Amino acid sequence: MTDQAVGSVRTEIAQIIEALETGKYKRVRKRLRHMHPAKIASLIETLDDDPRLAVWQQVDAAHEARILAHLTPELARQLHSESGEAVPADGEAAAAEAHHASTQMREVREALTQGKLKRVGKILHGMHPAKVAGLLEALPPRERVDAWSMVETERAGKVLSYLHDESCAALALEMDPEDLVVAARRLDLDDLVDLIQTLPEETGRQLLHATDARHRDKVESMLSYPEDSAGGLMNTDHIAVRPDVKAQTVLGYLRLLKTLPVQTDKLMVVDRKGAYQGVLLLSTLVTVQPERRVADIMDTETPAIPVDMADDEVARLFQDLDLLSAPVIDADNQLLGRITVDDVVDQIRESSERAMMNMAGLDQEADIFAPVLTSSRRRAVWLGINLVTAFVAAWVIGLFQTTLERVVALAVLMPIVASMGGIAGSQTLTLVIRGMALGQVAGGNARALLSKEMGIAALNGVVWAAVVAALAVVWFGDWQIGGVIGAAILINLLFAALAGLVVPLVLDRMGIDPALAGGVILTTVTDVIGFFAFLGLATVVL
Amino acid sequence: MTDQAVGSVRTEIAQIIEALETGKYKRVRKRLRHMHPAKIASLIETLDDDPRLAVWQQVDAAHEARILAHLTPELARQLHSESGEAVPADGEAAAAEAHHASTQMREVREALTQGKLKRVGKILHGMHPAKVAGLLEALPPRERVDAWSMVETERAGKVLSYLHDESCAALALEMDPEDLVVAARRLDLDDLVDLIQTLPEETGRQLLHATDARHRDKVESMLSYPEDSAGGLMNTDHIAVRPDVKAQTVLGYLRLLKTLPVQTDKLMVVDRKGAYQGVLLLSTLVTVQPERRVADIMDTETPAIPVDMADDEVARLFQDLDLLSAPVIDADNQLLGRITVDDVVDQIRESSERAMMNMAGLDQEADIFAPVLTSSRRRAVWLGINLVTAFVAAWVIGLFQTTLERVVALAVLMPIVASMGGIAGSQTLTLVIRGMALGQVAGGNARALLSKEMGIAALNGVVWAAVVAALAVVWFGDWQIGGVIGAAILINLLFAALAGLVVPLVLDRMGIDPALAGGVILTTVTDVIGFFAFLGLATVVL
Repeated sequence: MTDQAVGSVRTEIAQIIEALETGKYKRVRKRLRHMHPAKIASLIETLDDDPRLAVWQQVDAAHEARILAHLTPELARQLHSESGEAVPADGEAAAAEAHHASTQMREVREALTQGKLKRVGKILHGMHPAKVAGLLEALPPRERVDAWSMVETERAGKVLSYLHDESCAALALEMDPEDLVVAARRLDLDDLVDLIQTLPEETGRQLLHATDARHRDKVESMLSYPEDSAGGLMNTDHIAVRPDVKAQTVLGYLRLLKTLPVQTDKLMVVDRKGAYQGVLLLSTLVTVQPERRVADIMDTETPAIPVDMADDEVARLFQDLDLLSAPVIDADNQLLGRITVDDVVDQIRESSERAMMNMAGLDQEADIFAPVLTSSRRRAVWLGINLVTAFVAAWVIGLFQTTLERVVALAVLMPIVASMGGIAGSQTLTLVIRGMALGQVAGGNARALLSKEMGIAALNGVVWAAVVAALAVVWFGDWQIGGVIGAAILINLLFAALAGLVVPLVLDRMGIDPALAGGVILTTVTDVIGFFAFLGLATVVL
Repeated sequence: MTDQAVGSVRTEIAQIIEALETGKYKRVRKRLRHMHPAKIASLIETLDDDPRLAVWQQVDAAHEARILAHLTPELARQLHSESGEAVPADGEAAAAEAHHASTQMREVREALTQGKLKRVGKILHGMHPAKVAGLLEALPPRERVDAWSMVETERAGKVLSYLHDESCAALALEMDPEDLVVAARRLDLDDLVDLIQTLPEETGRQLLHATDARHRDKVESMLSYPEDSAGGLMNTDHIAVRPDVKAQTVLGYLRLLKTLPVQTDKLMVVDRKGAYQGVLLLSTLVTVQPERRVADIMDTETPAIPVDMADDEVARLFQDLDLLSAPVIDADNQLLGRITVDDVVDQIRESSERAMMNMAGLDQEADIFAPVLTSSRRRAVWLGINLVTAFVAAWVIGLFQTTLERVVALAVLMPIVASMGGIAGSQTLTLVIRGMALGQVAGGNARALLSKEMGIAALNGVVWAAVVAALAVVWFGDWQIGGVIGAAILINLLFAALAGLVVPLVLDRMGIDPALAGGVILTTVTDVIGFFAFLGLATVVL
């Protein structure tokens, strides 16, 4: 509406040129679709070479011939050769998908640099939305926006659902609001809920209001559950049947439906009041005699998942019981929806990714091509925390300045003590963190684990203390230095094992993720103990 | 057989006592099952208190009454009270499973310490095999063997399939060979294949020979595929139908089968020669009209997975396409089997676990309670590698001994420079490793990534150089030291970003897992550059 009002002032062509300049190719294409071929032809003729090609790249392949007819033969020939690229036809698109991702990337980037957006569109068209998402995230910001403009609006929603939060929000905001609504309409409700949660509040609300009235209530209720709970993983597209009907009635009902939601391996059995009774596996339905009643053939062993169960607990349940889908109920045993294994798989992958990123103080949802300033600010926090611990270690060293002045060899060897302790400690720490995740560290077996870890530390401590001591003696020709560093390494390895076990247990009890903070605390401990033992012993002995 | 021959020499009772002493409770139970109640009663009467209770704990609950009848009233009362524990009945077992794992652990360990194996058996009986496996791995070796002896032979196979390789092999070897065969018979073929691969060669071969003749060929062919390929994930329990029959014929066939393999969401469509044609979703089968032909309703879009595809590629395919199961074919398009999502979920979980363990130089399959000597030897390798890099760093410091002698403050501040570089570098490294796993780093976007990372390094370098310089000036009251450390930090952060990007790319090209070796190499680089820049600048300036 606003566009039209402005249109009376600015000419259509000026608007197109402006859209081209700001890279809003989608808007260009939309406008071109409503223009007469002759008008497009005259627009193309008035333009310089570069914008001319850019406009041509936005023309629908179906309309090319009609526009070419209005152009001078020379120009027509020139443009025609531009679109006559050797790109895979639709049929070959599937084969193209088998290409190594890296080859596709190279082709897309090449096409982008040459401004051949049409070619980009064709390559993307032949790829699965998940692959398109991966490719978009591998592009630097400028090229990413160009490529994004070539994704069909109908497929854009699905592609968004495969992106990490940060790039997802950025690209969604690149779209015209009405296109975003169209794209979102194609999504499963759980993906739509994720998208709304990812977008800035205002845009998310707009999207919610644009949702079909009959879905809006469901979406709103799904939005009310925390993202990291069963409710956040849940979808509401299940098929429910009554326990008192026969198998053949169910089959008749399913034939009326014509299609089932994707990932349907079981139907939900609920009574008249919506209370959950059990599940009816499709594999049971197709093997039983038609006259059997649902109540007699349904499976009541599949656990119904409380809507407030934590998502990692849901993931563990799916793994342990090899579930494909499971019902979700509220506190009153009312069936709310179902969780399917594909969302659980995503959850598992994301949580392991998050653990790895968090260990380096990074945000799992962060865009690999986030702006330098944003990234710097985020990473600075972790560097700042590390600086504090580094200064603690430096302060310990500072206590022994006079000793260091006397024996400079200590300064040379000092990092070895700290480093060996850090490595040994992180081995214990990693083992314990994994053990906690798998439930292997529980119920008071910490003592047994401690004695085992101390045993390993003692054994490895003695071995490596001897090796380092020998090397130090050879290097500096001083028996005492060898003795001091050997003792310090043994002490540090023992404390490292202790810290590797105690730190994660304490952090866990405090409700802090040991994978996040464990490493920093452990290194601080092994640095401090290492420097203190080494330089302290040296002060006494040397 | 051998047992009986020996039996003629040793009395039955002596054998039972020996079995008790060596903790072979399973053998005790087996023997008791074949003895007359009166004989058991007399055995119990002849024993001391401790072995008496131990034997009693092995008696089947069903036989207790008949044995008690043969005992003196006092002894009967005493033993009866021993078994009259308040343990959850079978019905309540499911409820008990909801218990927090840690509570169950505590109960089991308590029962184990008191020698109340019956109670242990009852608790384990109420738990899912996956939970039992987790609990076993949380027990120290001695208690683990005791608890293992209380797992029913019929369930033992399933429990083994949930254990990590090392504990799995150890516990399988604890069983009598004939029991292991019985346990293995209950397994799905893919789990059986995994078990055979985990066991020592000799035992694995025995198990293979004990397999039903009609399954053995399948198992042997499955054993021929690498564990980390589609063939290694594959199972052969699919249902195949012909393309030229009607839906109602398929339904009739399925009703004859009575049950379908677990995790069946689709049937495989193959022609007379076994060539793969497509899949027929159960959800399609139940919604189409009965007279439709399979060829018209089958799905030919689900990709068939080549048997030699790498397992992580299979996992990615399942994730991208949200598959529940997929057919596996050989090079001639012959259907070999199917992969189900539960095995893919395990693969995903295992590979992320492996990445985390490998980063600390640990083996993912290692038992958390492995013997001290075994663990020490394994971890020593990683400590040794680290020692080499630590000595390289020490050698760099050694080059500047005369400078250090002049300005001891340098020794105090030195670790700060190395540590800041290490953290900044590991941030870039982690981002790049994840990006490589997700396909975000590909097709020549490394240059764009490098300029972004260098930008971040420059920005954070300047900020933290200023902070550290200021702190150093305050601490040591020397402007030059501040200048030197600031410059060194900036230099080290820039090189750290460069190394964080280049190291994983080079490792990947060399076919080495960047997650495994990346951290060590990076730290070596940042240590060397950090010490060299800091002490080198100091030598020139101070």
